[in-house]
Order: sequence, then structure tokens, then C-alpha cells
Amino acid sequence: MIGTRLTREFGLRHPVVSAPMALAAGGGLAAAVTAAGGLGLIGGGYGDADWVETAFRDAGNARVGCGFITWKLAERPEVLTRALAHDPAALFLSFGDPAPFADEIAAAGVPLICQVQTLEHARHALASGARVIVAQGGEAGGHGATRATMTLVPEVADLLAREAPEVLLLAAGGIADGRGLAAALMLGADGVLVGTRLWASREALVPEAIRAAGLAADGDATLRSSLPDIARRLDWPAPFTIRTVENAFTRDWAADPEGLRARADLHAAYAVAARDGDATLAPPIAGEAVGLIHDVAPAGEIVARMAAEAEALLGGGWRR
Amino acid sequence: MIGTRLTREFGLRHPVVSAPMALAAGGGLAAAVTAAGGLGLIGGGYGDADWVETAFRDAGNARVGCGFITWKLAERPEVLTRALAHDPAALFLSFGDPAPFADEIAAAGVPLICQVQTLEHARHALASGARVIVAQGGEAGGHGATRATMTLVPEVADLLAREAPEVLLLAAGGIADGRGLAAALMLGADGVLVGTRLWASREALVPEAIRAAGLAADGDATLRSSLPDIARRLDWPAPFTIRTVENAFTRDWAADPEGLRARADLHAAYAVAARDGDATLAPPIAGEAVGLIHDVAPAGEIVARMAAEAEALLGGGWRR
Repeated sequence: MIGTRLTREFGLRHPVVSAPMALAAGGGLAAAVTAAGGLGLIGGGYGDADWVETAFRDAGNARVGCGFITWKLAERPEVLTRALAHDPAALFLSFGDPAPFADEIAAAGVPLICQVQTLEHARHALASGARVIVAQGGEAGGHGATRATMTLVPEVADLLAREAPEVLLLAAGGIADGRGLAAALMLGADGVLVGTRLWASREALVPEAIRAAGLAADGDATLRSSLPDIARRLDWPAPFTIRTVENAFTRDWAADPEGLRARADLHAAYAVAARDGDATLAPPIAGEAVGLIHDVAPAGEIVARMAAEAEALLGGGWRR
Repeated sequence: MIGTRLTREFGLRHPVVSAPMALAAGGGLAAAVTAAGGLGLIGGGYGDADWVETAFRDAGNARVGCGFITWKLAERPEVLTRALAHDPAALFLSFGDPAPFADEIAAAGVPLICQVQTLEHARHALASGARVIVAQGGEAGGHGATRATMTLVPEVADLLAREAPEVLLLAAGGIADGRGLAAALMLGADGVLVGTRLWASREALVPEAIRAAGLAADGDATLRSSLPDIARRLDWPAPFTIRTVENAFTRDWAADPEGLRARADLHAAYAVAARDGDATLAPPIAGEAVGLIHDVAPAGEIVARMAAEAEALLGGGWRR
């Protein structure tokens, strides 16, 4: 067992938190991660209140947290209130200014986890009262920016050591197995946030054909762009882009994102493709770590494997 | 002492190799790294034969290797022959096809180290007979591509385990202290290649004002672009760009790289600035790890510190 400040403060067996992947991380996934000894987070994403209610219901009695896309939550602040009514294990905010929500979260007695993509974001998260900071490198799947996990994690660790040593640090971006978990601990993290590896779990709400297209890709085959957001008419602010596996859609429109804005027909088709699993149009939303993933496994088994592999490495198994 | 396949096969005390940074890694830096127990590499870069001769002379009796930019070496293959005449400890190639040079290097009995930026490059390096593969993430300073160290290293490790288990693996990109070294070992590397941290060493051939501008930057303040290559009229092929610290020059031209091509006056001024140390025009060529670097130290001390810190972490020092 790998004990860290995260496992002690959150009562976990493994220092593994599931990323609150919008639409993909439902209550079943979050509950399975918690049941395995990690901390599961529901992907509240864009703040669809009914979806969030369903996810909490699907999580049953499992102690799970919930994440939101911060800039979108600002348009629907009442969804935060409803999520807090479920007494979540943590409230996770990423992609925007967490400050306006910090008081309500603190008043509910819920720990605030802020995901950051730059050192500057980390400073702001500290000022907003984060109890946990997630340093997310751009190799991550889904939305993110360009700093890399390998440098952002230790640089934020140094910031915390100087200014807020009681705040916990998680590493996110590119972590899909025990090697990544062990590396993150060496870099100064108290644990990891795992997205893509759990996107490829049985419990993730991902159409089978899209998941299969992700599993078939290697790590060279992903890219950051705004194309899926343009097709979904989501007004993501700078500096955030979305990492997906390349497909016919991302190749066709790479050189003309502005042209895509006018294609209402494609916007409609994209929504259908994402729902029905047409991976030639709606790409797998996955990170560079897809190249490390070769099976779809139950989430609990993924967490257990990752922890066991990291424990073996930390015990000297890295020697060859 | 951290023993790995790299330290055993190359007779090193520490699994640390210095990056052959073009123009910055002269014989003094390479010799200091070797003297400290690592492996020092001269930055043969664009293949200036006189510069390379001087560097080997400056390295004295130290056992050092030499690196070249592969696509440029193809224009000046005779420089390889001259470098091999010095019986280097290793010949390092990056940024292009190593295959045309592999036979000459093998015939000289010199180990070939190939730096790769993608899984596809790694496959080609294996086919070209590399004895060591360096998996370089895009967080690295200087030239590179976009894959991140955190995912590229384990993915290449898996490739080697399947296809060429005798080939060694180094991690490069974002590694500036013992945390990065320890993390790299967890990811499956046999050692690390260190650039930016040694760029900020006493021995590196970097104008003082440019080095100072690098030390003043945090890790958020770097970017990949082609601007310095345009100003230097270097025809770098895709997918390679150069990571530098942002400065007035990179900000001014970010939106108009094509406009810069026509500005012969600026090309001349850039050359003067790089030589004389005007960091407002010629930016520090450094990676995201600049945010982890706070002093200019002797190269030998940097290597010793990194190894000692990693050893402490691997011995359990990561626990808090």
C-alpha cells in the first residue's frame, strides 16, 4: 500500500483520483474507483443539472466527489448548490476562475480541488483556498493547455513548499499505469488524477466504437485543437484546447477551423456521431497515454493494477 | 550511487548524460560532466568542423561523446568522419534520419545514441542500429517536437521491451533535478539526458545576460516556435520547433513569422545579439525546466546534486 498525505487526509487506500471527465465519468465509474480504494469524481462538466443528479444516484452510497468546468459553472451557479447538497467528498473545479465559488464550497465543508495548467493558475488557486491542487500537463486528454506534467508538477510542488505546505498536490496528464503514478510521487505529488486510462474502463460512458478507436491509437496519434469545441459550439476560452485522437474530422478541418464554424450541418452530425459512436467524425477524447493502454478493464481493476505496479517500482522494481 | 544498465555499460558513476546543446555544450562542459561521473557530450550541432575540433581539444583527456543535428550533418558528412577520429565515447544524432550514418559509426566501434521525438522515430532509430535511444519530450529546451516526456518514455520503453530489450533508454525533456531523474527511472528509463539545467552551468558557452534572462523566467514563460530559426536562416524541417524563453522578439513576431523571413536587418541583428548577449532579441534557448533552476553552478556540482537527490528519493525520501 502506498500511503501519502492524500490517502491519509481523504481516507483512501490508493493515491488515485479519477478525473471528472465530462459526460464520460458518471456515477458508476466514480463509485467503482471509490470502491477500489481511490477517490471517484463525477464529471459534472458543463453543468447539466439532470445529468449530475443521475450520476449521484448511480453512485449509490459510494463516497464520491464532483467536478465542473469552471467558466461554464459561472453561467449556471445553481448547479453547484445542487451538487453540494449531495455532500460530495470533494468539489473539483478546472478551466476558469474558482474564486467566485470558493466561499459556497467552504461553507458546505467540502474540500476544494483546483486543477491548474500553469504556475500562474496555481498561484490563483492557492489564493482561492484550494485544499488540493491538480497540476495538469498538456499531454492529458480532453481540455488542457501546454505546460507538461514533468515540469509543472515539481514547479508547483516548490510553490506549495514555499507558500502553502499544507495544500496537497496531484499530478495529471499522461499517467496511465504504475510507472506514471510512481513517477508522479518522485516529482513531488501526493497522488495522481487519472483520465484517459479510466476513459478506457468498462464503466466509462463512452460509445464502444469510439473507445475502440482510442485503443487502436498510439501516443503519436493525438493532438490538441479547438475543432471538437467548434463543432459542439462551445465557447472555450484561451488558453484551453482539447486533446483527442486524430481522425478524419480533425485532419479535414485542421487547416480551416474558422470554416468549420459556419458548417451547421456538421455541428448537428457531430452531435449524432458523439452519441452514436461514429469515431470518424467524433474523435476519442483521450490523451497521449492512449499509447500505454491496450485493454478495456473494470475501473477497480485499473486502480488496483496501477497501485500494485507503483508499489513494486517504489520498492526497487525499477532496477534492471 | 544509482546503478543502471547505462552506468554499467558506459562505465559511469551516475546515469546522467549532458545534452549536446549546439554551440553551448563545448569541451569544457562535456569534460566536467564526465569528470563528475556522468557522460559529457559535445554539441557538434550544425557541423562546424573547427568548432568541433576546438571542443574536443577543450575536453582534454576526458572521455566525451559528440552530438550532431542529423539533417544538417547530411550536408556535411565529412564532419562525422573527423569527430569519429577522436574516438568519442558515443555519437549522438537527433532531428533527422540517422540511417545514412549508422554504418560509419558502427565501423568506428562507437555507440550510436539516437534521440527521438515520437514513437515512429523510435522505431526508425531501432532499425538504424541505435544502442541507446533518447526519448525527448517537447518540454525540452531547444529543438524538439510535441510529445511529452511523461508518455513518450514509457511508450518507447514498451517498444524496446518487445523488440529490442538490449537497447538502452534515456529520458530527455523537463529533467533538471533529482526529482526528474528519479521519475525517469520509474518511467522505465536507464538514465537521463540533461539540457537546460546544464545550460545554466558555469561551463556552458552562453552569454551571461542571456543566461540571466533564463534564470529569471518561470516555466510558464517558454514557448515553441520557429522564430529563432527564421532569424538565423536555418531551414529546420517539420516537425521540429525550438523552445525558448519568451522575450520581446518572440512576442513581436509570434503572429507574423513569414514577415520575419524578409527582415534581413533583423537576421543580422539577431546574430549579433546571440553573440553579445542581448536577451531582448536573442532569447534564452531553454526548456520548461527553467522554472526549476535558481542558480548557475559548476556542471559537476549539478550532476552530483541531481544524483544525490534522486538517490534519496529512491531510498524512500519521496514519503511525506
